[in-house]
Amino acid sequence: MGDLERINHVADIIKAEASSRHKVVVVVSAMSGVTNRLVDNCHQISAIHDPREYDAVVSSGEIVTAGLLSIALQDRGIDARSWTGWQLPIETDRSHGRARIENIETIELNNALSKGQVPVIAGFQGISPDKRITTLGRGGTDTTAVAVSAALRAERCDIYTDVDGVYTSDPRIVSAARKLDRITYEEMLEMASLGAKVLQTRSVELAMKHRVTLQVRSSFSENVGTLVCDEEDIVEKETVSGITYSRDEAKITLMGVDDRPGVAASVFGALADSNINVDMIVQNVAEDGSTDITFTVARADLELANDVIANKSGVGCREMTSDSSVVKVSVIGVGMRSHAGIAQTMFRALADKGINIQVISTSEIKVSVLISEEYTELAVRSLHTAYGLDAE
Amino acid sequence: MGDLERINHVADIIKAEASSRHKVVVVVSAMSGVTNRLVDNCHQISAIHDPREYDAVVSSGEIVTAGLLSIALQDRGIDARSWTGWQLPIETDRSHGRARIENIETIELNNALSKGQVPVIAGFQGISPDKRITTLGRGGTDTTAVAVSAALRAERCDIYTDVDGVYTSDPRIVSAARKLDRITYEEMLEMASLGAKVLQTRSVELAMKHRVTLQVRSSFSENVGTLVCDEEDIVEKETVSGITYSRDEAKITLMGVDDRPGVAASVFGALADSNINVDMIVQNVAEDGSTDITFTVARADLELANDVIANKSGVGCREMTSDSSVVKVSVIGVGMRSHAGIAQTMFRALADKGINIQVISTSEIKVSVLISEEYTELAVRSLHTAYGLDAE
Repeated sequence: MGDLERINHVADIIKAEASSRHKVVVVVSAMSGVTNRLVDNCHQISAIHDPREYDAVVSSGEIVTAGLLSIALQDRGIDARSWTGWQLPIETDRSHGRARIENIETIELNNALSKGQVPVIAGFQGISPDKRITTLGRGGTDTTAVAVSAALRAERCDIYTDVDGVYTSDPRIVSAARKLDRITYEEMLEMASLGAKVLQTRSVELAMKHRVTLQVRSSFSENVGTLVCDEEDIVEKETVSGITYSRDEAKITLMGVDDRPGVAASVFGALADSNINVDMIVQNVAEDGSTDITFTVARADLELANDVIANKSGVGCREMTSDSSVVKVSVIGVGMRSHAGIAQTMFRALADKGINIQVISTSEIKVSVLISEEYTELAVRSLHTAYGLDAE
Repeated sequence: MGDLERINHVADIIKAEASSRHKVVVVVSAMSGVTNRLVDNCHQISAIHDPREYDAVVSSGEIVTAGLLSIALQDRGIDARSWTGWQLPIETDRSHGRARIENIETIELNNALSKGQVPVIAGFQGISPDKRITTLGRGGTDTTAVAVSAALRAERCDIYTDVDGVYTSDPRIVSAARKLDRITYEEMLEMASLGAKVLQTRSVELAMKHRVTLQVRSSFSENVGTLVCDEEDIVEKETVSGITYSRDEAKITLMGVDDRPGVAASVFGALADSNINVDMIVQNVAEDGSTDITFTVARADLELANDVIANKSGVGCREMTSDSSVVKVSVIGVGMRSHAGIAQTMFRALADKGINIQVISTSEIKVSVLISEEYTELAVRSLHTAYGLDAE
């Protein structure tokens, strides 16, 4: 949420919703830049800081928005009141900075709703068993909204963002990208984790678990957004829903590794011990008792990963190379489960443009390939066309 | 409190105190400008706003400071933690925006102190019986500090401000003004209410009621500040402690008012009904069955006061005049109780400079006069010299 103008604008939206006989509960984030500034303050005071104090500091932005929005709603004749995480309460575990919601007390919310009041809840935060303020981490306000929706068995949870829905691909790259009317939770999860930064993975997981129908929509337009829902709620399902890409990738190749049991475990165990997430993994067929292993990590982890393998894994190899000028491009669609040939269309489309595939990984509903970063736009546009996703 | 540098500086001060075997409890205000910005936000959203939401919004600044200061203390090896008003809790009444503290729960504070922890309390706020956040109004952080000191029976309550103590007069006007070592609660109350903006009246009243010894000192210097304490704790007491002035005055004169019972009640009753505070009042001896009434109000209330008298008081007069170019100058000292001639010294000193006195009012420990504003500096300096207060 932005500045005061934006609060007034959101109040207008809520007024329209509340006037159309809907019972409305609002969950708000901090005004733009506020939380980042508070996070910076903590880092400037001390590089290492007590996460409980960090949470007390960074949770304040949402409380301010909740109060201001309540005032704006009252100014429009709507009975509204703000709620902090500790007032409801929203009970979480003790994992400060990335707490998980354990229970949302709905007595007060239901009381408010039954007397026609609009509750405005400060997102992103809760209270621990020690009565300390906790925060939920990145995308925490979306998570709060979904959890509140689940607790109240809400008909729908509308997530207002700065985009007007979920697109078949990044409109900045693919001018022919289309807004999707509906998408399944599973697809949205792949979209979220693969770089389409509309919704955080965690809030989608929570929505899927509790079958909360989400609508991703813009606070700047009245357009209908994209519904994120169960597969069975989508009548006409396209095979492929979208093409995504992620530049946050780096590739490491170990050549001439001993081909014996336990080698992979040593490599990836050492990386896991250093909290390095490994994504795609390929191991070639062994020749002469030795093999090559290629895998990808987040770009920010590349240096650390190289160090861990060289010094801590206890695995020898003839040569280790790494490359951070790679991109992961993915084709996503639940329809893949029942359609053959999806991957083949991808490989052919890329081959036609002369794009070399470095690594491939697949799941039930996606195919991802690692390619040289310079081909990003070309690959994404070609695949968008190849799967018939272009807007007419 | 100012920016992050200031937080670090305050952490250094607290470390020094805590290292000298003192048990320390800290009460913090918001960083400079933060609360004013939040107040502005509320006003911008709506001229009339729910005081409960206002409190939720404007109370956030102190929580941020408490968290950041705790981090800064931990960074210096001191065990510290932040406390919000609702966590302790600090229980107040329901008067949002100007709530009164009813109880401070000290169990948690004493637990923390007994294990050597430094509690850092967010000032200015508490929690109402309805579990809503309340704020204490202007100077609320000082009030919290005094109330916490009283609840814990603290040896002393140090108030860190941007001045290094209480002076015999405003050093910007009187270059010879001296810092006082000690001053009584009663004198400090007169100083506070008469325009020396060091401490809010309410925190001094509370300190007096609970016999909490205050020290007003600067966070920018190591100098000893001014102790505010009981009269009996001051051995060598000067007759006059200080000369103060207040420009926030306006004078209204009603000429030719009927001299009959109930007229004054009508005038001042009507003003009270409109929440206008009347300060000095003079009524001349009646001539020919009519009299003149002169009184002062805050400058901001002048227009409203004129309107109330003309249209709502039901009192007729021959003529009504008002003047907002006046200033109230006061001589303050508990020694006046036992010394005669204090007022006479004042009147003579002003007469010697040709300054005309418009209204006089006195109490046990002060004499105030209303004079033309243009004589402010001359009057204050002359009185400072006349009472022997000038530094050598």
